[in-house]
Amino acid sequence: MNVSHPSVHPIEAPPLTTTDGGGVVNEVPVRVRMKDVQGMPGTLGGLLLRICQFLFAVAALSVMTSTSDFASVTAFCYLVVAVALQSSWSLLLAIVDIYALLVCRCLRNSRIVVFFTIGDGITSTLTFAAACASAGITVLIGNDLNECGQNHCVKFETATAMAFLSWFTVSPSFLLNFWSLAAH
Amino acid sequence: MNVSHPSVHPIEAPPLTTTDGGGVVNEVPVRVRMKDVQGMPGTLGGLLLRICQFLFAVAALSVMTSTSDFASVTAFCYLVVAVALQSSWSLLLAIVDIYALLVCRCLRNSRIVVFFTIGDGITSTLTFAAACASAGITVLIGNDLNECGQNHCVKFETATAMAFLSWFTVSPSFLLNFWSLAAH
Repeated sequence: MNVSHPSVHPIEAPPLTTTDGGGVVNEVPVRVRMKDVQGMPGTLGGLLLRICQFLFAVAALSVMTSTSDFASVTAFCYLVVAVALQSSWSLLLAIVDIYALLVCRCLRNSRIVVFFTIGDGITSTLTFAAACASAGITVLIGNDLNECGQNHCVKFETATAMAFLSWFTVSPSFLLNFWSLAAH
Repeated sequence: MNVSHPSVHPIEAPPLTTTDGGGVVNEVPVRVRMKDVQGMPGTLGGLLLRICQFLFAVAALSVMTSTSDFASVTAFCYLVVAVALQSSWSLLLAIVDIYALLVCRCLRNSRIVVFFTIGDGITSTLTFAAACASAGITVLIGNDLNECGQNHCVKFETATAMAFLSWFTVSPSFLLNFWSLAAH
């Protein structure tokens, strides 16, 4: 007995089918699960994001600490602390990603993803807050008071921009982790 | 024919079962779907969150505009714009929530949730950035320069705190919307 069955799945891969003794076609249900989206932990995209976060945070840290008078402004001290924390966290997770890429693909565990999501959320919020506070003060010094002559405006602006870039690269990690947690 | 079947579902509600003609027990699959978590759009918790966001944003706006010299600092002007946007958005969504509660529960649509999530993400980021920039400048004026005598430090601090509280109440809305989008 030949049963013609119309194509109900408009995708490239044909649905898996089995035929029982009578020739009747039974579809085997395929469980679709989102995993290994580039940018998630344990992928090459995720590792690249971590390396970018680390490099931008280290750049912000080194530029800000190279100025002599950053310690006189609370927001600049806070920026140094926040990007130091961010660079440590990103370096740690870059090492974990390298391990996962080389040895095992064992980062689909729900508890690990919860840990990564909370860590990314905290560090990205701190980095963004520090970058915004520094930006506010840099704009105050440069535009509102016009005192760039006696301040290191260019260095402050560079450090702030690096902190913003670091935040830009942490956000996809956080959102992808949160997404995979919800879709779990 | 009586088939004894061990309890494989350790939950309160017994699994729905049907018996066919021969007495064989077939389990009917039950689709579990997370919905109507308090705080999502169309719920009473969501409406309360929106009202809190609106009230805190309006408080920040009115306190900041009540100072005479906020316009001389870029970050304070930015705070006024950001909390004005936040209060408009929250008021709009509070009205939508009231409509959904009174008339229909029609906010489970995927496109509506995408729209709410993007809007919440943008407004919460802007409000948080403005609050951080204002906080940096308030701390600079009050602690680093000790010039509270000739500035409205208390009003600046109050407006900043209100903006932070508004952000605190937008974040759950954003995260719950994003979660329901991913779990859809």
